[in-house]
Amino acid sequence: MNQLFNGLDDVYEEIVEIRRYLHQHPELSFQEVHTAKYISDFHRKLGHEVRSDVGGHGVLAYLKGDKPGPTVALRADFDALPIQEQTDLPFKSQNDGVMHACGHDGHTATLLGLAKVLNSMKSEIEGTVLFLHQHAEELPPGGAVAMIEDGCLEGVDVIFGTHLQAQMPLGEIGYRSGPLQAAPDRFDIKILGKGGHGANPHETKDSIVIGGQLIGALQQIVSRRVDPLESAVVSVCNFEAKNPYNVIADSASMTGTVRTFKEEVRTFIEKEIERIIEGTCYASGANYEYSYMRGYPTTVNHKEETDFVAELAKSIPGVETVKETEPIMGGEDFSYYLQRVKGTFFFTGAKNPDAEDSYPHHHPKFDIDERALLVAAKVLGSAALNYMKTAEKTPENAAR
Amino acid sequence: MNQLFNGLDDVYEEIVEIRRYLHQHPELSFQEVHTAKYISDFHRKLGHEVRSDVGGHGVLAYLKGDKPGPTVALRADFDALPIQEQTDLPFKSQNDGVMHACGHDGHTATLLGLAKVLNSMKSEIEGTVLFLHQHAEELPPGGAVAMIEDGCLEGVDVIFGTHLQAQMPLGEIGYRSGPLQAAPDRFDIKILGKGGHGANPHETKDSIVIGGQLIGALQQIVSRRVDPLESAVVSVCNFEAKNPYNVIADSASMTGTVRTFKEEVRTFIEKEIERIIEGTCYASGANYEYSYMRGYPTTVNHKEETDFVAELAKSIPGVETVKETEPIMGGEDFSYYLQRVKGTFFFTGAKNPDAEDSYPHHHPKFDIDERALLVAAKVLGSAALNYMKTAEKTPENAAR
Amino acid sequence: MNQLFNGLDDVYEEIVEIRRYLHQHPELSFQEVHTAKYISDFHRKLGHEVRSDVGGHGVLAYLKGDKPGPTVALRADFDALPIQEQTDLPFKSQNDGVMHACGHDGHTATLLGLAKVLNSMKSEIEGTVLFLHQHAEELPPGGAVAMIEDGCLEGVDVIFGTHLQAQMPLGEIGYRSGPLQAAPDRFDIKILGKGGHGANPHETKDSIVIGGQLIGALQQIVSRRVDPLESAVVSVCNFEAKNPYNVIADSASMTGTVRTFKEEVRTFIEKEIERIIEGTCYASGANYEYSYMRGYPTTVNHKEETDFVAELAKSIPGVETVKETEPIMGGEDFSYYLQRVKGTFFFTGAKNPDAEDSYPHHHPKFDIDERALLVAAKVLGSAALNYMKTAEKTPENAAR
Amino acid sequence: MNQLFNGLDDVYEEIVEIRRYLHQHPELSFQEVHTAKYISDFHRKLGHEVRSDVGGHGVLAYLKGDKPGPTVALRADFDALPIQEQTDLPFKSQNDGVMHACGHDGHTATLLGLAKVLNSMKSEIEGTVLFLHQHAEELPPGGAVAMIEDGCLEGVDVIFGTHLQAQMPLGEIGYRSGPLQAAPDRFDIKILGKGGHGANPHETKDSIVIGGQLIGALQQIVSRRVDPLESAVVSVCNFEAKNPYNVIADSASMTGTVRTFKEEVRTFIEKEIERIIEGTCYASGANYEYSYMRGYPTTVNHKEETDFVAELAKSIPGVETVKETEPIMGGEDFSYYLQRVKGTFFFTGAKNPDAEDSYPHHHPKFDIDERALLVAAKVLGSAALNYMKTAEKTPENAAR
Repeated sequence: MNQLFNGLDDVYEEIVEIRRYLHQHPELSFQEVHTAKYISDFHRKLGHEVRSDVGGHGVLAYLKGDKPGPTVALRADFDALPIQEQTDLPFKSQNDGVMHACGHDGHTATLLGLAKVLNSMKSEIEGTVLFLHQHAEELPPGGAVAMIEDGCLEGVDVIFGTHLQAQMPLGEIGYRSGPLQAAPDRFDIKILGKGGHGANPHETKDSIVIGGQLIGALQQIVSRRVDPLESAVVSVCNFEAKNPYNVIADSASMTGTVRTFKEEVRTFIEKEIERIIEGTCYASGANYEYSYMRGYPTTVNHKEETDFVAELAKSIPGVETVKETEPIMGGEDFSYYLQRVKGTFFFTGAKNPDAEDSYPHHHPKFDIDERALLVAAKVLGSAALNYMKTAEKTPENAAR
Repeated sequence: MNQLFNGLDDVYEEIVEIRRYLHQHPELSFQEVHTAKYISDFHRKLGHEVRSDVGGHGVLAYLKGDKPGPTVALRADFDALPIQEQTDLPFKSQNDGVMHACGHDGHTATLLGLAKVLNSMKSEIEGTVLFLHQHAEELPPGGAVAMIEDGCLEGVDVIFGTHLQAQMPLGEIGYRSGPLQAAPDRFDIKILGKGGHGANPHETKDSIVIGGQLIGALQQIVSRRVDPLESAVVSVCNFEAKNPYNVIADSASMTGTVRTFKEEVRTFIEKEIERIIEGTCYASGANYEYSYMRGYPTTVNHKEETDFVAELAKSIPGVETVKETEPIMGGEDFSYYLQRVKGTFFFTGAKNPDAEDSYPHHHPKFDIDERALLVAAKVLGSAALNYMKTAEKTPENAAR
Repeated sequence: MNQLFNGLDDVYEEIVEIRRYLHQHPELSFQEVHTAKYISDFHRKLGHEVRSDVGGHGVLAYLKGDKPGPTVALRADFDALPIQEQTDLPFKSQNDGVMHACGHDGHTATLLGLAKVLNSMKSEIEGTVLFLHQHAEELPPGGAVAMIEDGCLEGVDVIFGTHLQAQMPLGEIGYRSGPLQAAPDRFDIKILGKGGHGANPHETKDSIVIGGQLIGALQQIVSRRVDPLESAVVSVCNFEAKNPYNVIADSASMTGTVRTFKEEVRTFIEKEIERIIEGTCYASGANYEYSYMRGYPTTVNHKEETDFVAELAKSIPGVETVKETEPIMGGEDFSYYLQRVKGTFFFTGAKNPDAEDSYPHHHPKFDIDERALLVAAKVLGSAALNYMKTAEKTPENAAR
Repeated sequence: MNQLFNGLDDVYEEIVEIRRYLHQHPELSFQEVHTAKYISDFHRKLGHEVRSDVGGHGVLAYLKGDKPGPTVALRADFDALPIQEQTDLPFKSQNDGVMHACGHDGHTATLLGLAKVLNSMKSEIEGTVLFLHQHAEELPPGGAVAMIEDGCLEGVDVIFGTHLQAQMPLGEIGYRSGPLQAAPDRFDIKILGKGGHGANPHETKDSIVIGGQLIGALQQIVSRRVDPLESAVVSVCNFEAKNPYNVIADSASMTGTVRTFKEEVRTFIEKEIERIIEGTCYASGANYEYSYMRGYPTTVNHKEETDFVAELAKSIPGVETVKETEPIMGGEDFSYYLQRVKGTFFFTGAKNPDAEDSYPHHHPKFDIDERALLVAAKVLGSAALNYMKTAEKTPENAAR
């Protein structure tokens, strides 16, 4: 593995440059035209076989090793978020209201740097590395589903992916077998009251008051109705009832998210939300609209591949701690890949040990310690090469 | 008065035309350039002494009678509202998003028609009629204050004004001595919580949940804290916390209105709102911003002038009912005039008796029965002439 | 009237003694056995014709003047409240948990003292004075209804009554024609959730949480649904859900009161409460029981009799101020008398001008300035005598 | 082990008789005089060395085997609950308002039956069996703490205990290493508002409205403030504000329970409750009292002993399933023993497979399938004998 590690150390500065370039030019989910072109150009220059526009803006780049063996997919996502960056970074977002506030710029730079190094090791590679660049991870239905439908997993034996974690110390790798990330659903509620003059509340059905009550009542789902041993989140994230200061709201719109790990809890919450809306609106004589959209499934890691990555991570330079992580409530459409092929998704610590603050993902001041990209690249590259080495040489593999 | 009444009957069609012209060309508060010009042109054609741009777009037109006597101001406002008209009227608003949805077009047409008739009666008039055309009644700080500062009440002995009421039957005049219309204040609240990922509520201070709780708690001001014998309204009319479906709100903004008739209740509510915000935010570890802007004062009619108008209204053709009206929670900057000179503000019924529906003021389908304009003109004209007749001929009056 | 006034001054100490005796021996509504006996004994000793057990524990005592004339009823109530007295008075209640915390001890002492003086003026009295001692004013259905059914108003021409007001300064008489006191209704709500272990909320329907939500939602009736120009109160006064610290409440009981002046507001609130309970319970899958009991009607004073008392009060020694009072939200079953005979109910100020604090009626530290009893006696006695003097001597009157 | 199993089969009927006798004669926590005597008499008859009144009503009975070895404590609790039994069992509670509604009668009968059989196997026993009969498990501070202070764990090498579970199928044994049962804390809140007449809310600080708001706000602790991956419960179980229907509550009392598994979550919740109370009371100008009493610690099983019991349970007749159980939110003062000596606490399924309903613990209709007692006895007896067999024969052990 030394060749891999040294090679990555050598391209580290380029990885950082790529990350900063991407950070300056973020694109929203499903709109990543330039980022996708940047990625495919990069791989084409390396001579990789490239498929663009996979299931949207997805990019597949294949590096065939000189020796036969299995196909290992390494995935990085590349979309950004509708957030106005508030950092003072020299490579701050140049696109108003759009920001790489979740580290996908880092994921992509990691994979491109790794691609360059592995490309130079072709003779050592016993199988095929698929660089799976996925668009639109942030916005359901997400890019993974469409890329799968468009064939991105064809011939793939195993898949590995990682997420940089701004709250986990640099040097730490977090693994977990079984459920790792929650199913992230979305709901939309519209209270249909009756507007009127702010001076005459009795002639109205005040949608803002009804909405306020509803938000309070929704807290009971988690606090009273879901088994305390189960994890669940119900968050109302958006509330809009825009009116002049003296006009009582005719309607009020709310949007939010539900996070669960179990199907029966998910279904239960979907129904309870409606029961609460229905009762609350009835109490005020108002009507409502309600829709519930299921997001990604729970991300469930395969045990064998998870143990495999956890084990090899221990001997990678730059990795100081390898530990079982708690599951997290955030969703990931990596889940779709894991429903179809074996693999694992792990966390790479990216918290600057010297920074006083560290802002959470999706925060306008979010940032990562770029040294984490090197760690991530080493673990992913190492996983790919080791997997190939230890994979049974089946006739099927050998034939490729 | 017969000359007045017959004269008005004769110009009724012209009054209607004026009203429809104004209805088609509404202008927002403080932007009534064309309307103001239309008004001053009208008066200039009649030969009245005209002062334009009084305290903004206000217009003063003076009709000096041939005989000496007091100065009687008759006021009409002429601004429109930021509402998209939804009627099918042939003279529907031609200005997108702007509408005469409160009847100020009617007030102005009434006053112009009356001006024409009184102009023809100059030899009978024992004093001066001031046609006080006020801009910007709908939007605090309102036009009245600025017009007063610019001298509109100079020499004025008494002031009369009316508001067409779309919910009061045609033929009815409503009077009330003492408090008639509430003080309409405005408040702005911003909850400063801490945003974050929708999946991780424990890392945030959820501004929407705090806001929801606050709205609920504010209900207690009227339900528990204000003497039930006092009238008061606290309405949160606007609530904005715009976020992606999975980002917990960093902040939430609310705007609303408070309506009161008594100064001590007003002051008390202003403080109680802050007390409730403070406690609610403290309970969640959040911060806040709060500002309270006082709108117009309570409109308090003078007893003698109110009784005077109520009495004479009884014998005016077209007036079927004269009755004491309940106060209303809506505000009026006529209040400023009444703080300085004697006078009264009354309501003129404008509800079409045959209409199935009647939409409230400020509604996109608001309309009035135009015959009410004739009634209003007769009462106002009659009040002016009678007031002059019965006014003590003070040396001061005689001198004018 | 001087004879009356001097006589009352002379018995003032006895009035105070009576009041203190009654204060020490309070009895709950409908249980006033000893108080009733005390009263009837007192009148019997004076030689009055006494009827006991009228409609319960009511007592009627008739003083026939030597001259013919109308029958004037003077009413005092004599029941106490289920409150544990917390004063340090030397004549503190000796009955645990029962207290004269509304001044009925004072009303009764006033009437007995007055009876003694009027008794000594028999030769001056031109008609009949009925001392109407009513039990059970505090607890619906109240004593008035039953006493009326039992004939207490037979032959009565007019009725006067007063209430000592601990918040109104000594020396003040408050009168009001028309609605004076609200209709005091009662409601009972029982939330039927599902109990269970405090550690397992998801297996329960938490009646306390539902009840808490309900109390919040009920605030909207007054704050949003009743016309702000109307006075209305909805108070939940009792909440009971008694459980061990670790057992979630199977049910929760609430009791409260509604106060209104208008029948349509009253009916509306009765329905809105149920609508809110229904919606709130539905949102939690709980059931409920709800009952609404109408209390006394609104107390409506007759104009002529009110003006009569207000006028004569002005010249009574000890009365410093006579003013129109605001209506009050508290109920009074004096209302039933006023539905049947003419009369008025007025307020007598009883606030000690030197006291730092004054506790409201029904407070465990409630007290009155006893000098108010003398004022009340003078006004009531004066009203009776003057009414007789000015009453037309109808043949009917003369015959009595 | 066959001797043990056969012996237990033989005494099964007696075990059932004992259980039914105890069920008929339940005693409240800390008042178990007769039950304690019943137990000590039973052991004395068998010739065991007995210590009564240990830390209260606790009973210790020692069975010394003929061979040297470790001391194994087997614990059963024997107090009942303040619940009125609502079953139709022929052996229904004869003590009004007291019921064995948690199965402690079964625990005790199991241990007594086991004592009889082990007594007959003395020659086989390689150490000492301590039958640890604990009083007052249901009511903090519980009996365990006092018994420990009184020396009950002296010389004890390991402790085993079980709880019959009415919701777990007969034949199932549930084990779990690490945290098994939550820390059950108690809190008491008193809202100190200001009472007054139900008609005059503005003169009061309505403690019931404040309390209702508080209950709603407390829901946010679990729904918003605790990490969704942690289990926590905050239940307000008791709410008392007893008043006449027309007297606004001067104060309101609440009592409830908090359940957590981690110390930092526990401490956090204790503080958050106060923060919420403080803010809520401030918003209404009210005061409060708050106390938080820590109950038993989290019950944390030792890994080695848990695995030991889980493993041997698999081969015990009557045990059909042995599985890792989820933790439960209910508390157990067995936790104190486990803080001092090694051991494990496990669950024994006691749900009648043919019963249609099964009522939860602490329910007035709670019952168990008595066959579970035989299963529990076999596992506990087997654990004791096997532990002795496999225990290293330390000099210390041998000496005993």
